[in-house]
Formats: sequence, C-alpha cells, structure tokens
Amino acid sequence: MGILERHDKGAVAHLRLNAPERLNPLSDAMLAALQEQIEALREDRKIRAVVLSGAGKVFCAGHDLKEMQAGRQAEDGGRAYFADLFARCSSVMTGLQKLPQPVIAQVHGIATAAGCQLVASCDLAVAAEGTRFGVNGVNIGLFCSTPMVALTRNIAPKHAFEMLSTGRFADAEEACRMGLVNRVVPADGLETAAEELAETVAGKLGAAVKIGKEAFYAQAAMTTEEAYAYAGQVMVENMLWRDTEEGIAAFLEKRAPDWSQ
Amino acid sequence: MGILERHDKGAVAHLRLNAPERLNPLSDAMLAALQEQIEALREDRKIRAVVLSGAGKVFCAGHDLKEMQAGRQAEDGGRAYFADLFARCSSVMTGLQKLPQPVIAQVHGIATAAGCQLVASCDLAVAAEGTRFGVNGVNIGLFCSTPMVALTRNIAPKHAFEMLSTGRFADAEEACRMGLVNRVVPADGLETAAEELAETVAGKLGAAVKIGKEAFYAQAAMTTEEAYAYAGQVMVENMLWRDTEEGIAAFLEKRAPDWSQ
Amino acid sequence: MGILERHDKGAVAHLRLNAPERLNPLSDAMLAALQEQIEALREDRKIRAVVLSGAGKVFCAGHDLKEMQAGRQAEDGGRAYFADLFARCSSVMTGLQKLPQPVIAQVHGIATAAGCQLVASCDLAVAAEGTRFGVNGVNIGLFCSTPMVALTRNIAPKHAFEMLSTGRFADAEEACRMGLVNRVVPADGLETAAEELAETVAGKLGAAVKIGKEAFYAQAAMTTEEAYAYAGQVMVENMLWRDTEEGIAAFLEKRAPDWSQ
Repeated sequence: MGILERHDKGAVAHLRLNAPERLNPLSDAMLAALQEQIEALREDRKIRAVVLSGAGKVFCAGHDLKEMQAGRQAEDGGRAYFADLFARCSSVMTGLQKLPQPVIAQVHGIATAAGCQLVASCDLAVAAEGTRFGVNGVNIGLFCSTPMVALTRNIAPKHAFEMLSTGRFADAEEACRMGLVNRVVPADGLETAAEELAETVAGKLGAAVKIGKEAFYAQAAMTTEEAYAYAGQVMVENMLWRDTEEGIAAFLEKRAPDWSQ
Repeated sequence: MGILERHDKGAVAHLRLNAPERLNPLSDAMLAALQEQIEALREDRKIRAVVLSGAGKVFCAGHDLKEMQAGRQAEDGGRAYFADLFARCSSVMTGLQKLPQPVIAQVHGIATAAGCQLVASCDLAVAAEGTRFGVNGVNIGLFCSTPMVALTRNIAPKHAFEMLSTGRFADAEEACRMGLVNRVVPADGLETAAEELAETVAGKLGAAVKIGKEAFYAQAAMTTEEAYAYAGQVMVENMLWRDTEEGIAAFLEKRAPDWSQ
Repeated sequence: MGILERHDKGAVAHLRLNAPERLNPLSDAMLAALQEQIEALREDRKIRAVVLSGAGKVFCAGHDLKEMQAGRQAEDGGRAYFADLFARCSSVMTGLQKLPQPVIAQVHGIATAAGCQLVASCDLAVAAEGTRFGVNGVNIGLFCSTPMVALTRNIAPKHAFEMLSTGRFADAEEACRMGLVNRVVPADGLETAAEELAETVAGKLGAAVKIGKEAFYAQAAMTTEEAYAYAGQVMVENMLWRDTEEGIAAFLEKRAPDWSQ
C-alpha cells in the first residue's frame, strides 16, 4: 500500500493517511499524494462523499519535522523549500474545500498542528472519544500560523488564541463544543459514524450538494447583500434542474424521487 | 383574518404567519404581506419591538413548493419567476434586519428551510421545547443556498454545513447551544417569554436601540479599525441626545429617567 | 500608588486598574495611563505576557459617566470631547491587540460596558465564579456601540444582540460558553489561574508568540486565500530563526531547547 490509501465503497471514497509509524506526517510525499487524490476526486462523478482518516494510533501529527530540518541544507537555508512547502500544504487544505464532494474527517488519537488544520479544513468531522486536538507548534518555537487560518474559521477567537499561544490540547468533547468537530463517538464506533455521515450525504442529489458546497465557501467571504444576490442565482439554477423538479414533485406526492443522478 | 395577522400590544407589534393548514409557507402572498408590514413598521414610531410567530402547529415550513412548481409553466421554465421570488424573499429577510425595531422570532413546532432562515434573520429568537430546526432542502434536491446566508451568519461553519448537507434537524436545545436561538422555554411559556423579551427591549430608549441595531449590522461587515471609527461616531451622536443626557443623569442620581420618547 | 498599578513578576507584567472606590472607570486619566503602559510594554523585551485586573470589588464598570457629563459644559455640548474620548478608548482597546505580548484579562465582580469591551479586547480571559458581564448602556439610553465592536468579534450575533439590546448580564459560565472568557475558576483561585496562564505563554519562544499574535489579528480580516498566502510567509520567517531550528531539533532529540531568548 502507498502512503495514502484509497478505497471506494459505493459512492464514498475513503482516503487513509498511511505512515503510521511516523504518525502520518504531512511530508512532501503525503502532500503530493493528497493533491493527486484531490485532483482525481474533483473529476470523479461516481464519488459523492470523501472520508479522510489516519492509519495506526493517530490521525495526523502535522508536518514532517525531520524533512523540514533537512530542508535547511539548501544554500538559502531552506527559505525557498519552506515557502514551497507551505504553499503546497495550503493548496491541499483549500483543495479539500474546493472539492465538489463533502469531505469528512474521521479523527482519532491526536490531530496536531497541520493535522488539526486538516480537521478544520474538512467540511465535517467525527472524532473518537479520547482524541486530542492541538495547534502546539508554539511549544517548539514554531507558531502554527497556517493552521490558524483554518482553525479561526471554525472556532471562536479566544478559544483559538488559547490553543495557539499555550499549546494546550483540547479533548474531543471540547473540540465538539467549540465547533471543530460535529460529533464525538466511542472509539469502536468511529468508522461506522463517519461512514454513516458520508452515506447520508452521498444519498442526496449530487449536483445539489456540489452547487451548495461551492456556494457555502463563496458566500462566506461576501457581505450579506452580495451573498444574497449570489445565493439567489444559485437557487435559480438549482430549481431549473430536472432532478430538482422531480425531487419537489416526489415530496409533494409523498413518494421517493426518481433521480437521474 | 389575513395571511399575516398583526396586533399591537402597547409598543410591541405581533406579526403572526397565518396559513396554518399549509404550515405557514413563504408564498408570494405571505412575502408580500411581510414586505408590506416591514415597510409599515419602519415608519411606525409607536412600535419599539416586533414579535414574529406562526399560527397553528408550526412556525414556518419554508417556501411554498406547490406555487414554485406552478411557476415552471412560464415560457422560460420559471427562471424569471424564481429569480424574482428569491429576490423578494431576501428582501424580506434583510428587511427585518434593517427595521429600526428589534425583531424576535417566537418559534414552535418546526422552522425549516426559509422558515429556519427567518429565525436566523431575526435579531433574537425564543423557541419552545421540542421545536425542530432544519435547512433540509437538500433532501428534495434543492440545497438551501439562500437560507445558508443567514444561517452561516449565526452559527459555526461545521454545524451549518452538517445541517445543510445532511438535512438533519437540530432540536431546540442544540439550536440554542449553536447560537441560532437565545433561549428555550416550555411550550406553554413560549408566548410569555417572547413577550417579556419584547417588552424588555421596548422599555429602553427607542432612539438608542434604533441607532444601535443599525450599527450592529453595519459594523459587522467592517474591519476592526473601520468599525471603531464608525461606532465612535455613533456613540458621539447618541451621547448628544437630550434623553441620553437625562438617562445618565438619572443613573448617577439613582432615580428613574424622564425620557421624552 | 497611581491609578494604574504595574508590577512585573519575572516575564509577566501585571497591570491593575486602581480606582476601586469608583469601580475602576475608564476615565481620561485611566485611559492615558493604559495608553502609556501599552506604549511602554510594546518596547519592553523582558515582558512576555501581560495580566490585566481590577482592584477592589470589580474588574471595571466602563466609562466614567460623571466625567462624561461634565464634558457637556463645552461650547459644542461635548461633541469634540466625546469624539476624542471614544478615539482614545478605541486606541487602548486595539492597542492591547497590537501589543507583541498576549494580554490576559483577570476578571471578577463585574465587567460592564467598556469594561466588558476590555475583556473582549484582551487575547485571553479568566473569570472568577460569580462575575457578571454586561453591555448595559442601553439601560441609561446609551447603546454600547463601541463595546459592540469587540464583543461581536468574540461571540455569536444573537448572544451579542441580546446583551446589547436588553442590558441583561451574563454570568461567568455563560460568558465562557459564549466564548467571551476562556475559563471560570473559584474566586480564590483567580489570581493563580491568570498567573499560570500568563506563565505558560511567557514560557514559549517570545518571538514566535509575537509573530503569531500579530498574524492572528491580521489574517482574520483576509479572505482564506489571502490569509494562507500571508500566513505562509509568516511560517517561512519563523522557520528561519535559529531558535526555531533549535526548538525543532530539541524536540526531535527529546531534550529541552536551548533558546537564546
């Protein structure tokens, strides 16, 4: 198996970070594999939801620190490599949000630094009891500035600043209360919970989920007036699809819809 | 009684969606009636707070799907009608926020799709125990893109995305924790709770509430620096009113203010 | 002692509002003393965290209303004075966020109006059980428009609007759930809790906390794409410091870092 496993089950693609002995770091190879899968999934019409998990004891412990230290050997002390690394990493994070399919983080063990950013960058997240979340780079002198971008778009500022400046871990229940994960389940029910959520989403009209997810992130950056003008256009397009006409008709006639997708 | 009842009680206007047999849908007629009341209330100096409720078993189940399907008979398949419909609906939603008076949603039964948007668009909301909230258009192939605009300006992104992409209902307690409603009360205390909240707001200096509500939404779209420059000007205007001078004097002298308004 | 006490303990500066008989109002003198300390702290390389507290029974009851009323004696009825007052106050509030060191509010008794804004403007906050938070200017005819700027950047809109339009107090537990404070502790443990939090932050690499805090507020005003481009540059700079190289090396070698700062 490669560094990033993928197996599809019906309309759900399961991606699994697979470098368990090293706590699934976002190494150059892992980021490349994630980017490749993001590009493949973007065009994959069979897939309607994605579950992202980690093999072994933890979800993801962030960047590959050994690889980063090695990057300092370059003539510029690593400047160009680091700039490229963070650009590639940010591209993966925003790429998850640009995918037409919802992405669900299935999180266990720990999710730290860029691993926590990965959870924050997924559309939905389910965590096992006992999971710990941290943006604790500050403990080693590297403030989690890029993870912060995703984190602060998920949770309240004082919660985020505390995690970033103290390195304190939040447990799964706290992460749930703060808005970083959608629900917490016993460890032995994690896979099932993530799968059920994925299948629920995958059971909807794919085109509606796609247009809706795109609009979700686009409208968030607009003023309320702009957002309404834009979202109104999205609703008009959605209404004009044959499958939506059928979906509404089926609802009014109290029967199951006969969707072409 | 018409499709939208209004009765005023002191300084509080009570608007009640009144098409209970059809779950108070936001039909063309209902939107027109709401728009008309918004325009009337805007100029109504006697009214200092508005309570919005629904007659019958539920608050509001969203758009009028039968009417929308009928709109497809037009030559353009409904495109122009739908665009106009969503524009009118958005105008009602933002119109509530542009009213000088605070608007309190008094919610029971269900608040779904544009009905949930209506709750999100009110300044305050009180819900009866057992109320269910959903943006569940995705279940019939119509992603709740316009309700999303209001919802995502109320609650955390992961909570919002789950509701939008799975169609899952949140109960009243969850809606309260997420920030969609201010408080949950037993069903038989709902009307009283909404009225008490309205009367509390109506008992304040009307001009201060008005200038404050306007500033609340205006500053939210600004950077912190811009917001302070603007809010500082609002505070200066507020300070220069005779009634505010009297309000502060009364407080310092430990007596009730003698306000002209 | 002056109106604003400062005593440094190791790398932590403790500022204490010291006009307890008047509930530590943000008078002209208090704002000037705060501004002076902010400017001093900005250049103070020994200090790595700041704790802000209030002497006597409460943290801070907001503006100095008597002084404000006296300001009306000017020819312009106080317009110029009020404009200047709110500008100076906003400068203190944003100044706390522009300090390189994290600022922790240590809150007890009450934090009302601009006193509540002060809590919202600190990076972190710890509150004693029993503390009450309010933006209750509306009760005396003066809507808390400038406190609103800070408050709405901390908590959900419906929670904020309720506090602003009803003047209702939130207790410490509710403030914590809403995101206004990080934790609530028994009154006799408040000082210790604030100090522990300050020392935790002060124990990190100061340059990393500084660059991170600056980025925290800067990126919040950007789109996600802009924020990633900017935060990526911050991470590159951070990575190139000798102390960060050492911090990562120490972590990989499971030893304590030998930092120059």
